Amino acid sequence: MNNQQVLLRKRPVGRPTADDFEIVDSPMPAVADGGVLRRTIYLSLDPYMRGRMSDGPSYATPVALGQPMVGHTVSQVLDSRNPAFKPGDFVAGYDGWQEYGLSNGVGLRVLDRSAAPISTAVGTLGMPGMTAYVGLLDIGQPKPDETVVVSAASGAVGSVVGQIARIKGCRAVGVAGSAAKCDYVINELGFDACVNYKEQDFLSQLRAACPQGVDIYFENVGGAVFAAVLKLLNVNARIPLCGMIADYNATDTPPGPGLRPLLVKRALIKGFIVFDHNDRAAAFLRDCTTWLREGKLKYREDIVDGLDRAPAALLKLFDGENFGKLLVRVSPDPTR
Amino acid sequence: MNNQQVLLRKRPVGRPTADDFEIVDSPMPAVADGGVLRRTIYLSLDPYMRGRMSDGPSYATPVALGQPMVGHTVSQVLDSRNPAFKPGDFVAGYDGWQEYGLSNGVGLRVLDRSAAPISTAVGTLGMPGMTAYVGLLDIGQPKPDETVVVSAASGAVGSVVGQIARIKGCRAVGVAGSAAKCDYVINELGFDACVNYKEQDFLSQLRAACPQGVDIYFENVGGAVFAAVLKLLNVNARIPLCGMIADYNATDTPPGPGLRPLLVKRALIKGFIVFDHNDRAAAFLRDCTTWLREGKLKYREDIVDGLDRAPAALLKLFDGENFGKLLVRVSPDPTR
Repeated sequence: MNNQQVLLRKRPVGRPTADDFEIVDSPMPAVADGGVLRRTIYLSLDPYMRGRMSDGPSYATPVALGQPMVGHTVSQVLDSRNPAFKPGDFVAGYDGWQEYGLSNGVGLRVLDRSAAPISTAVGTLGMPGMTAYVGLLDIGQPKPDETVVVSAASGAVGSVVGQIARIKGCRAVGVAGSAAKCDYVINELGFDACVNYKEQDFLSQLRAACPQGVDIYFENVGGAVFAAVLKLLNVNARIPLCGMIADYNATDTPPGPGLRPLLVKRALIKGFIVFDHNDRAAAFLRDCTTWLREGKLKYREDIVDGLDRAPAALLKLFDGENFGKLLVRVSPDPTR
Repeated sequence: MNNQQVLLRKRPVGRPTADDFEIVDSPMPAVADGGVLRRTIYLSLDPYMRGRMSDGPSYATPVALGQPMVGHTVSQVLDSRNPAFKPGDFVAGYDGWQEYGLSNGVGLRVLDRSAAPISTAVGTLGMPGMTAYVGLLDIGQPKPDETVVVSAASGAVGSVVGQIARIKGCRAVGVAGSAAKCDYVINELGFDACVNYKEQDFLSQLRAACPQGVDIYFENVGGAVFAAVLKLLNVNARIPLCGMIADYNATDTPPGPGLRPLLVKRALIKGFIVFDHNDRAAAFLRDCTTWLREGKLKYREDIVDGLDRAPAALLKLFDGENFGKLLVRVSPDPTR
């Protein structure tokens, strides 16, 4: 039995291509004392992965050439010589782009499949959901009746941002890249409005969707959307800066918008990285699990089957072609 | 006797010219019950005045066409029918670009000429000093041994920022526009380093001046200096955004630097306007008066004589030609 892996073969310049990856069959790792072997069911694909492919300055070490790409995973324990895990357990971990993961179990979280579908452990109840929770609540500090705008609104993070904004009594306005996504954001997720940034009159549509201006802008994309929102900021607006996916494949640092509106509006921008906020993990899991069970947090998954299709699937993220949380199903999900 | 005034004649497009102003002799105002008449000694010239000349969106009402330009002033009371003021008192106010001011006294602050030179009431102990104090301490939150960079370091705000940074145990690094200014910033004001942004190798000089990176960047100028500092930010850096003088005469909103470093470094930018922070006025005056008397806060004044020269003097600010706090001496200072 082999362990299929996707390795980083070279560092992309600009947009990644299939050629930057290599799919190999490695030997199955052997389980020693204390070890936990598991089979990957879901691999989460997330925008931060583009950063790990480069060796430029970032907040985390890049993936070494010839090593498997990193990534959050949902797996099932196959073999365990560790009393904290037993075969059959479902666990959330960070096993990366491979069929099988082996470790001493540190950092693995055992999932209660009766509490929520296991795939949510890398979505609404995982890193993307916690990113939304921390960024919106701790940095954005929403107050009832404020207007919250979020870009990439149908995605794994944005969808949670808008729904928590609604839970907190705010007006939630999404920005997304197609009419179908906007329709989903309004009619399924319950946002108050959603604007397609590809429309010619995007700015005037966004202005119409925010008649009271913008108090919080949860920034996932950068680029032209950011520039438009800057024109609509209210005094003391807050901008949790979560991602700038529009810039991730750039070979130069693209210029940003002029920041004078921040001065005039006394606005705040704060970049944040979810793993700095682990002290909020318990509160996040408690609140979001509750909201999910109450039907207040909905989600949509965009599932690609087969680890060998992960490279092509990752590119969908940068083109905005995914619709919902992007997952690779590496092996069948026995709970579905 | 007449009251010489400088009126705003038209709204500049781009860089102001002398033609945008009109110097007139108006009748002396008559003092009624409760009134306080004073003669302007010093008129403070500050970058925010460019904003008041335009009617675009800003945080304050623009000066109406045909009305005197606004501005902070130090004056002496000539006539008073208000028990809170007596002839001969020195007062700080907001009388604007005119020889004589008349009001019911609201907002006037009587100055103790034995505590500090009266001109400091519109400089180190006035709005510019309080801008430095609030921006650095409340937004920047400096900790000992951190590195604080401030642009326009020899100016009214920047000079105070760096000296307070030193008082708080930080490394203070200035950015200024000439070798003479950098020399002054280091040798007179006691900054640890100062870099001339007009030098070809500005970025490498700034990097050398900040061997531990940048924890706080007090932003007065925008433009290329901001872009350079972004490359040197430490994790959790703070950027109090006080002004962007490099952009004030622009007719379009100039683009800014790409903001990805903010994300990677989890940095904060916060725009602020000093008049939102009046609750800090007492602490500011207490601390800065003490530091001034102890010789820890030095300052330099760039004094232009004659109200009729105020329009030309204001333009010096945008060209970086002033050296120190820019003042117009409208009438002789009897305390010097």
